[in-house]
Order: sequence, then C-alpha cells, then structure tokens
Amino acid sequence: MENTLWKHILHVKKVNPLVHNITNYVVMNNSANALLAAGASPIMAHALEELEDILKISPVLVINIGTIEPRWLDRMLFAAEYAHKQAKPWILDPVGVGASKFRNEVVAKLLTFKPSVIRGNASEIMALANYQGINAKGVDSHEPSEAALQAASELAKHYNNVICISGATDYIVSKHRQAAVANGSAMMPLVTGLGCSCTAIIAAFVACIEEPFEACLAAQAYFSLCGERAARNAAGPGSLQLRILDELYALQQSDFLNEVKIKIA
Amino acid sequence: MENTLWKHILHVKKVNPLVHNITNYVVMNNSANALLAAGASPIMAHALEELEDILKISPVLVINIGTIEPRWLDRMLFAAEYAHKQAKPWILDPVGVGASKFRNEVVAKLLTFKPSVIRGNASEIMALANYQGINAKGVDSHEPSEAALQAASELAKHYNNVICISGATDYIVSKHRQAAVANGSAMMPLVTGLGCSCTAIIAAFVACIEEPFEACLAAQAYFSLCGERAARNAAGPGSLQLRILDELYALQQSDFLNEVKIKIA
Amino acid sequence: MENTLWKHILHVKKVNPLVHNITNYVVMNNSANALLAAGASPIMAHALEELEDILKISPVLVINIGTIEPRWLDRMLFAAEYAHKQAKPWILDPVGVGASKFRNEVVAKLLTFKPSVIRGNASEIMALANYQGINAKGVDSHEPSEAALQAASELAKHYNNVICISGATDYIVSKHRQAAVANGSAMMPLVTGLGCSCTAIIAAFVACIEEPFEACLAAQAYFSLCGERAARNAAGPGSLQLRILDELYALQQSDFLNEVKIKIA
Repeated sequence: MENTLWKHILHVKKVNPLVHNITNYVVMNNSANALLAAGASPIMAHALEELEDILKISPVLVINIGTIEPRWLDRMLFAAEYAHKQAKPWILDPVGVGASKFRNEVVAKLLTFKPSVIRGNASEIMALANYQGINAKGVDSHEPSEAALQAASELAKHYNNVICISGATDYIVSKHRQAAVANGSAMMPLVTGLGCSCTAIIAAFVACIEEPFEACLAAQAYFSLCGERAARNAAGPGSLQLRILDELYALQQSDFLNEVKIKIA
Repeated sequence: MENTLWKHILHVKKVNPLVHNITNYVVMNNSANALLAAGASPIMAHALEELEDILKISPVLVINIGTIEPRWLDRMLFAAEYAHKQAKPWILDPVGVGASKFRNEVVAKLLTFKPSVIRGNASEIMALANYQGINAKGVDSHEPSEAALQAASELAKHYNNVICISGATDYIVSKHRQAAVANGSAMMPLVTGLGCSCTAIIAAFVACIEEPFEACLAAQAYFSLCGERAARNAAGPGSLQLRILDELYALQQSDFLNEVKIKIA
Repeated sequence: MENTLWKHILHVKKVNPLVHNITNYVVMNNSANALLAAGASPIMAHALEELEDILKISPVLVINIGTIEPRWLDRMLFAAEYAHKQAKPWILDPVGVGASKFRNEVVAKLLTFKPSVIRGNASEIMALANYQGINAKGVDSHEPSEAALQAASELAKHYNNVICISGATDYIVSKHRQAAVANGSAMMPLVTGLGCSCTAIIAAFVACIEEPFEACLAAQAYFSLCGERAARNAAGPGSLQLRILDELYALQQSDFLNEVKIKIA
C-alpha cells in the first residue's frame, strides 16, 4: 500500500491540479503555499459574479468555514450546490463547528450538498455528528478517539463519503474501510492552519486520484509525515511552519517508504 | 519582580486561555501563531450571528482596527459593549489612529466601552489622547517619549485602565504605576504586525492574571525580549518573523531572568 | 546602468515612501513585509470612508484584484479615479485576468483610469491586451514570450505607461524602451504572492524615482535578484519565502553589481 500511496503523491505533482478554495482569512496564504509546495495550483476566488467561471475550470473545491459570515455562506452554498450538481468532488473543513449555533447551522446547510470528504479534528467531527442527530456511541469511552471514530463511521455511512480525523493519530474512514496514520508531531497544533492546509492537500489528491479513500489516505500520510519531519530538531513552531513547506516540496521516496506509519483496519 | 513576571509567563502556558480576536486581515495569521507559541488559544470570529456565543466562552477580547471598515465596526462595537457590560477584559489596538478622520471616529466610539488595556506606538497613543481632548502636555519636549508618556498617563487616569506604548523602550502606564521595558530590537518595526501580536499576547496575560498592570508588564517584557533574542544574528526581517515564534515557544527561565531589562517608576 | 539602478535601490531605502495598497487577502501580509524589507512603509486601507485621507498622504497606490468582489471594486475605482485626477502614480496588478468574465470587466473598468504601471505574468498581460481589443500578434510564435512582449508593447503605447512581465526572464516595456532581467529562480512561482510583492515594490520605486521606466527596471532587477539569491541552497519554498525578505533587507552593492543580469533593447 505504501508504494501505491507514493505513486499518488507523484501523480499529484505531475498533474498539477487546480484547487479552488473558499476558505478563511487566517489561512489563505498558508493553504496556497501548501498546495504549491505539494505540486498543485491554488485559486482563491469567492465573488458570486465569477464563481461559475472558476468552478468550471477547477476539478475540485474546498470549503472552509473558519471565519464564516453570512455573505460568505451565500457563496459557499452556491459553490457547494454547483459542485454537487456537476458531481465534482468537494471537501468540507467545518472549522470550529460546535462553538456557536451559527456554525452548526452553516454546516447543516452545507451538508445538504453532500461533501465528498469532511476533514476535522476529533471534537469537530463529533460535534458535527451530534448536531446531525447521529448518535455517536462511546462518548464515555476512556479512549476519546473511539467516540470520534464511531462518529466518523456513522457520518461516512450517512453521506457515503470519506471522513478524515486529524490528531495524534489520524483516521481515514469510509463506509467500508478504515485506516490510521501514526505520523505527525505534538508541535503541529501550535502552528495555525495546518489542519486547513491538510484539507487543501486532500482536495488536490481527490482531484486527480480516482479512489477517494486512497486519495485521502495518501494526502494525510504525506502531510503528517512532512509535519513530523519538519518538527524534528525544530526550535519551535516558527521553524515548523517554514519547514513543512520545504518537506512537502522535497520529500523523497525512500524517506516516505521508511518512515510512514499506516495501519489499515 | 522579574521572578513574578516569569511566573506569569508560565501561568499563561499552563492555563492556555482562549483569546477572541476581531482583528485586521494583514495580521490574523501572525496573531494566531504568536498566541499559540505563547501557550494561548486563538479564535478569530466576527460574524454578528455568533459573536455572543464566542464571547461567552472567551475570557478576553482583542479589537484591532488595522483594516477597519463600517461593517467590521458594527461587530467591534457589539463585542466591546458586550465585554464592557459583562466586565470581561478587552484590549484595544488603535492601529493607524490619526491617519484619517474615520479612524479617529472609530476609536472614539470604541472608547465609550472603556477598554481594559490600550496598546499602540507613541504616535498612536498621542493621536488618541489629542482626539479625546486630553491635553498631552510636553508635545514640544526634546524627548518625544515624554509627550507620549504624558498622554498615556492622562488616558490611564481617564479610563482607569492600562496603556502600553511600544517602541525602542516600551512603557506600561496605569493610574498609579509606571514601568519601562528596555528590551527589543531596531529590526522589529521591519516585520509587519509585531505590535498586533504583542497586543494579542497582552490579552492572553490579562485573561488569566489578576492584576492588569502586572499582566501587561509581563506580556510586554516577554514579547520584547523574545524579539530581541530573535533579532540577534538574524539575516533580516524574514528570519526575525520566524524566530520570534520559536522564542515565544522556547524561552527559558534563566534567559528571561538574565536578559530582561525592566525599570519600575 | 547597473550603478544607476543601485542608486535607485538606496534612494528608496532613504526616502522610505508610504505605499497605499488595496490588495488581496492572500498576500496582504507578504506585501507589507516585502515593502518593509525594501525600506518602504506599507499602509493597507480600503474603507471608502477613509480612502481620500489615506490617498492624500500616500505618494503612490497599488491596486491588486486577486480576491476581487464587487464591494472591493467600488473602492478600487474610487481610489484609481482619485489617483488619476491627482496625477498620482498607481500600479495595477491584474491577478487572474482571463480566468473569468468578471475579472475581465473589473480590469476594463480600472483601465479607464490609466494605471502608470501594469505588472503581471505573460498570460495575464496577453489576456488583458486581448480583452482590450489589442491585437497581440505573434500568438503562434514558438517563443511564447514573443507574443506577450508584443502585447506589452501595444499596451504601453495605448496607455502611455510601463508594462512589467514577470517570468523566467522579466521584461520592462514602455513606449520607447524595453529591458530584460535574466535573474530569478524556477522556485519562485512555488511561493504564493511573490508577483504581488514585486508589484508593491515597483510602487515604492515609482513613488520616489522620477523616470517610471527606470524605476520599474530597478525594482524588478532588485526583486528578481533577491529571489535568485534566496533560492540558492534553499531546501524548498518555505525557506525561499523567508529568505527573500532577508535578501531585500540586506542586499549589498557588490552583490547587486556582480550578479544582476540586465539587457536593454
């Protein structure tokens, strides 16, 4: 499997997919740079007046609600509906869902257009499942990831899509398959927007790799390993933020194959 | 005093306060990263529809007018009023006040909700005092900081709060106390938004340290010393921007106690 | 000529011009930092309520349409018209023109106020020329830069201004003159917003150097050489993004004179 994932990483660099992002103010620059370093082409465009033109030329769409407000929601709904109708893959990053009623309502509206992939941390995935009335059993589990995995599994069945949970261990969950990535670093949550960058890179992979589960797994393994390597000997999160771009750009096959830690359930 | 300030720095890292920022487009990413590196948790949220929910879970609020426009002002006023009524501390960064009539009016409206702390450079603090009809004597002083200090002192009395002036020497001024921090680097003004990052970090300290003057002094000393250390041997402002995050993350007690230069009046 | 260009670089650092930017969300931070590193002072302000006040104190204006939407267009048109009427130089960066009808219309409206300089990549300059009904001959040329140069030449004649094309070789084109800069690095397109930073720096030079063609050439040579030097031995685009700021700050006369590659037609 690791060899297949590496081929996917090379494929993205070769295809150079255009990734259309409607994302938040905090991470626009980081997401664009992460996509470029991974070999994709970012476009950040959100005016209603041009969304259709941009959607037509982009094989994939990212919607990230980090700094959501009503006039951005209108555009996100337009774009998500367009993608849904055209059977174009789109990825939802439900940043901060659960922190406000407004965010919950925003996510509920976006979910009606059935995202191909949802990526978040464990608490976001659980908040999203709970708000959708999906009973995520195991909330009282000693292992918090159990509850999140349960929520992800129910969501994946409900939406027939792929759910990615980022954390100390990352999980990729679809209706029939599940995988874990044990790469990463405890310093990664100290850089803002790395999760959002991961979402953007997942989109680049989904744009040009046919099987969505494998695309997500390759993207997540690539990103988490680059974060792990970037954090080694890093003096702090400033260095990590810079080095992760260098790693995304320069990662070698031998390092990927030697260091990636994937477990497929 | 230096030992007390170091304890405050550790306390913030332990408490991990949530800091709610309504700030400008240019610095959102930097402010979030500075807060994370200092051990706090940033949240950037500004939709009127969710402000109350976010304000309820955040012990402190930052308002920064760097890229102000009317629809952002509405949200800032809502948030400042809410914080004022709930006796929640909030910090004002009056970026560019004095540069336009609009900015002056924006600041005048925000000041009606009595910020707990105001942080700016000397010219901003003086512009703010003058526009408020506070007679900042000493404008003709040979030492420009004299005039700014006078303005800060009058403002601190008027609003019964703490005024922080960033510069070659930083000043922390309250009704009864005054302190100076002689750390920093002449390269710091060549990185955009370092003042805004300092404001965000002051907020994190005010959120979890009882005495506001000491909280501001600890935050300012911590930030300016990290900037000074980051600038040593830095090849330029690119390196400084990265290294200051590493320093905020990794600063050691012995370095703080040996290098911090505080003078209490 | 190289000695003259170096004098221009020093002159900008001495004069420290204020550069007013109405630009896109993705690059605001980078543009501000590039200006600071080059010795200029950035101001990002876009509220209609303060545009006139800010325009009055700024010797130059940048308009960049990267994340354009209608309410930003209103401000850009106000600012461009003001600059045009006051004979204040202004620089247009037509990011993504050709990618949507909306962007084409936006650029057409802005062009009515005759920008002093337009900077883009080859495809943007060609899209802009074609949309303006300028027949850019040579589109079928083996050398794609031929067609772009033809378009630039026609545009420069039509608007009596300077056109800058960024690429593997950069071109500066006016009604009567043409120059090429052969510095840069193939890694530069992998950092988002470097073109936008170059536009901002061109503005700083145009603000305080009398002859626009020379101002543009000096700015472009300075920026491309700094990018080339920053990319040497860089581990990837993360390092490049940081180092280019350090180079803009620290570039020495001897390095500039030894390494800059200019050809004047």
